[in-house]
Amino acid sequence: MLFPETTLTATPPTKEPLTKDLKNMEVAIQQARLGFEEGGIPIGGALASRPKTSFSADGKLLGVGRNKRIQEGSPTKHGEIDCLENIGRLSALVYKGCTMYTTLSPCTMCSGAIVLFGIRRVVLGENTTFVGGEDILISRGVEIINLDLTECKELMIKFTEAAPEVWNEDIGEE
Amino acid sequence: MLFPETTLTATPPTKEPLTKDLKNMEVAIQQARLGFEEGGIPIGGALASRPKTSFSADGKLLGVGRNKRIQEGSPTKHGEIDCLENIGRLSALVYKGCTMYTTLSPCTMCSGAIVLFGIRRVVLGENTTFVGGEDILISRGVEIINLDLTECKELMIKFTEAAPEVWNEDIGEE
Repeated sequence: MLFPETTLTATPPTKEPLTKDLKNMEVAIQQARLGFEEGGIPIGGALASRPKTSFSADGKLLGVGRNKRIQEGSPTKHGEIDCLENIGRLSALVYKGCTMYTTLSPCTMCSGAIVLFGIRRVVLGENTTFVGGEDILISRGVEIINLDLTECKELMIKFTEAAPEVWNEDIGEE
Repeated sequence: MLFPETTLTATPPTKEPLTKDLKNMEVAIQQARLGFEEGGIPIGGALASRPKTSFSADGKLLGVGRNKRIQEGSPTKHGEIDCLENIGRLSALVYKGCTMYTTLSPCTMCSGAIVLFGIRRVVLGENTTFVGGEDILISRGVEIINLDLTECKELMIKFTEAAPEVWNEDIGEE
């Protein structure tokens, strides 16, 4: 089961329909799975407008992305950056009404991107295998919801045990 | 004159030969100028290894980049991100021995990238027209040297006066 009930009960989102968050997170997880199948680092992202914003009345998926370090030799295309890049140029007004979904706690670069563009809400799959720049998000008033999903952790553990040097490279560790 | 003596006297770098910093900053400024000629946002970046590191004995230029929002419709290719992307995958050990040169105070995304990859030193052209995530850099112990260069400011003023809406989009302002 993708979203075990016990996990969801532990950290319920507070302001948006849970079903919408789960649906969007599942899209991000599909990206992570696809990345894994490609031999890449299994982290996925998705950006969706929040319900009842000026941009969209019903919460629209704007785009997805995944870590491309291995697939494209890219040091900066993390799940979130690839997602923002795939979507292309947007105005601040649109970002403001969006939630970023990411299967893993966003690193300092991705957290900085979220802050830069004024995205006010982040839903993450887990922050057990890695904690990124959540302090940066919190200091800028970004809402963080951790779904603490077993599947996200398992994908990361599978990859990092098989290729620890690639993961270290991705997070700037020696 | 590219580097007025008075400016350099005001904020001298502390640990590296000044001539090397000026040479590398000039490369970043060339990128900013090129971006401006292309009709783009005139911000450039360059990454160079520091003298006497394990990676290079004499300070080697690893690569350059420039803001590509207009040229490629890219929301994430700021000068520094484009530079890192153009260089490609590097190990943490190499980044650790590098200085990032950027014509403008790095935004939160680019500051987060500098922190993520463990780049320990940033030389910037100016922070008068915009202040990015310098607080993030400082909180992580990254050394910042501001050359406070008139040419960098003039390029930015010329662009932002001509296309304020594009600049606002680049920094997530409405």
